[in-house]
Amino acid sequence: MAKKVLIIYAHQSSGSFNAAAKNAAVEVLTAQGCTLEVSDLYAMGFKASATAEDIKGEVTNAENFCYMKETKLAWEQGKLSDDITKEQSKLTEADLVIFQFPMYWFGVPAILKGWIDRVLTNGFAFSQEKRYSQGIFKDKMAMLSFTTGSLESMFSPTGINGDMNVTLWPLQNGILHYCGFQVLAPQIFWAPASAAAEDRKSMLESWRTRLQGLLEEKPLSFIPLDCFDEKAFQLKPDVHKKHASKEFGLTVGIHLNKPLPPHSQMKAGC
Amino acid sequence: MAKKVLIIYAHQSSGSFNAAAKNAAVEVLTAQGCTLEVSDLYAMGFKASATAEDIKGEVTNAENFCYMKETKLAWEQGKLSDDITKEQSKLTEADLVIFQFPMYWFGVPAILKGWIDRVLTNGFAFSQEKRYSQGIFKDKMAMLSFTTGSLESMFSPTGINGDMNVTLWPLQNGILHYCGFQVLAPQIFWAPASAAAEDRKSMLESWRTRLQGLLEEKPLSFIPLDCFDEKAFQLKPDVHKKHASKEFGLTVGIHLNKPLPPHSQMKAGC
Repeated sequence: MAKKVLIIYAHQSSGSFNAAAKNAAVEVLTAQGCTLEVSDLYAMGFKASATAEDIKGEVTNAENFCYMKETKLAWEQGKLSDDITKEQSKLTEADLVIFQFPMYWFGVPAILKGWIDRVLTNGFAFSQEKRYSQGIFKDKMAMLSFTTGSLESMFSPTGINGDMNVTLWPLQNGILHYCGFQVLAPQIFWAPASAAAEDRKSMLESWRTRLQGLLEEKPLSFIPLDCFDEKAFQLKPDVHKKHASKEFGLTVGIHLNKPLPPHSQMKAGC
Repeated sequence: MAKKVLIIYAHQSSGSFNAAAKNAAVEVLTAQGCTLEVSDLYAMGFKASATAEDIKGEVTNAENFCYMKETKLAWEQGKLSDDITKEQSKLTEADLVIFQFPMYWFGVPAILKGWIDRVLTNGFAFSQEKRYSQGIFKDKMAMLSFTTGSLESMFSPTGINGDMNVTLWPLQNGILHYCGFQVLAPQIFWAPASAAAEDRKSMLESWRTRLQGLLEEKPLSFIPLDCFDEKAFQLKPDVHKKHASKEFGLTVGIHLNKPLPPHSQMKAGC
C-alpha cells in the first residue's frame, strides 16, 4: 500500500543542506509511490510559543492558565486554533513523519520545538494510558534527520560533546516514543557546513540510498509499557531481575546503573 | 559584593507555581542585597524563531542563509535586532542566571528555546576557542529551575521516563556549560500540579531555604577543556588511562562506556 509521509522541515533557506536533504526525501519517496506532505515551518511563519491564543474562545481558568489542561479541553471541544488543527490532520494521515532540521544547542530549533509543544496535544497525541509502547501513534513511524555543527568524533563517549545517544534520548524517547511512534534510526549529517562539496554530495547520496528502503527498516528498541508497574511506573521486579546479569542497561535512560547499551539511539537492533 | 541576578521566566500565567517560584527567588535574593532582573518571556511576547529579521539591514548570503554565520557577523557589526541586544546586555551584567520554566516534552518550552537560540549568539556567548571550561561566561553561574508533570520515581534509572540526569545533559552540558557557566544543581519541583496544596507550599519553602545560600553553592562537575586534544576533541590518552580503573564514567555524556556517575547532573560533588 502506498504510504503517506509528512516532513516537518525547519530551515530558513531553500539553498541549505537541510533543504537538499528534504528535497531528496520528497523525490525518492514520491518515486516509490508515497504521498508527500511538507510543513515548511519558517515559510509558514509557524507560531512557536504556546499561548492562550491557541484556544478559540474563552479559556476555563484564566487566573491560573495551564497550557496542557486548556489545550486538552480545547482539543476535545474542537476549539484549538486552525494552524494546530491543520498540523494534527496531517499527522493523523501520515504513516511516517520525518523531522528535518539543523541541530541547535543539542536540540531542535525553537520553531520545531513549538510544533512539538503545540501540535502534540494531550488527548490527541497521548494520554495517561496511551503512551510509550501503547501510544496513540504506535502504528506510525517517525525519525529525526538533522545536521550538526560538530564532527562525529566530538559526539562520542570520549568526545568533548559526549555520546550522541545521550543527547538523542530526550528527543527520541521523550517525544517520539512517548507518543508511540516506531522510531527509525536518526539520519545524522555530521558537520556538512565544514565538509568539502564532494563529501556533502556523498552524504546526500547515502541518504538517497537509505530512503529507498526506509519504509522497511526495523525501528529502534524501547521497553514495552507492561514492563513497568502501573502505580510508580517502575520496572517490574521480574524484568529487573532478568537483566541483573546483563552487561548493559536496557536503554540510555533506563540504564539500571549499568553501562549504556552502545548505539541504542542511533542504530536499530542495538 | 552585591550580585546581579537575571531570571529568564517562561510561564504564561502569574497564578502558576512557576510564577510563585520566580517570585520567591526575586524576594529572597533581593532581601540578600542582590539586584534582580526578570525577562518574562510570554509577557514580552518574546520572538522564538530564529529568522533573518534578527539581523538589521541586508544579510550577506540570502540565497544560502545560515543563521549562525549571519548572526555572528551581525553581532560583530552591532546589527542584531534590539530585542536580542537587550537580552545580551542583561546577560552581560548578570552574575547568576536562573531559568524558570515548566518542562515541556523533556526539554524547555519553545519560547525559552527561542531565547537560547537567538540570544546566545556565536561570538557573544561562545567561540571555537572559548567554550566549556574556557567559555565566555566562566565567571557567571547559571541554573535550571523547573516543574515536571511526572513524579520523581518515573525519572529514575529504573523508571519509565529514564534517568533525569540523562535528560538534563543536553541542557546543562550542551547549553549552559558550553557557554562556560558554572552550573548550579537544578531545582526540580516534581509534579506540583498533582501534589496537595501543603506539599506545593513545602516545595516553595525548601526553594526559599535553598535560595538563602544559593550564591555560595558549589557547581556541578564537568571536564576541563584541556583534557581533550585540540584536533578531534577526544579525551587525551593520559586522562582516559587515569580513569580506566574507575567504576564510573566521567560525566553523563563522556561516560567512557562505564556506568554513569550517579546524580552528576543533579547534585554538586557527584
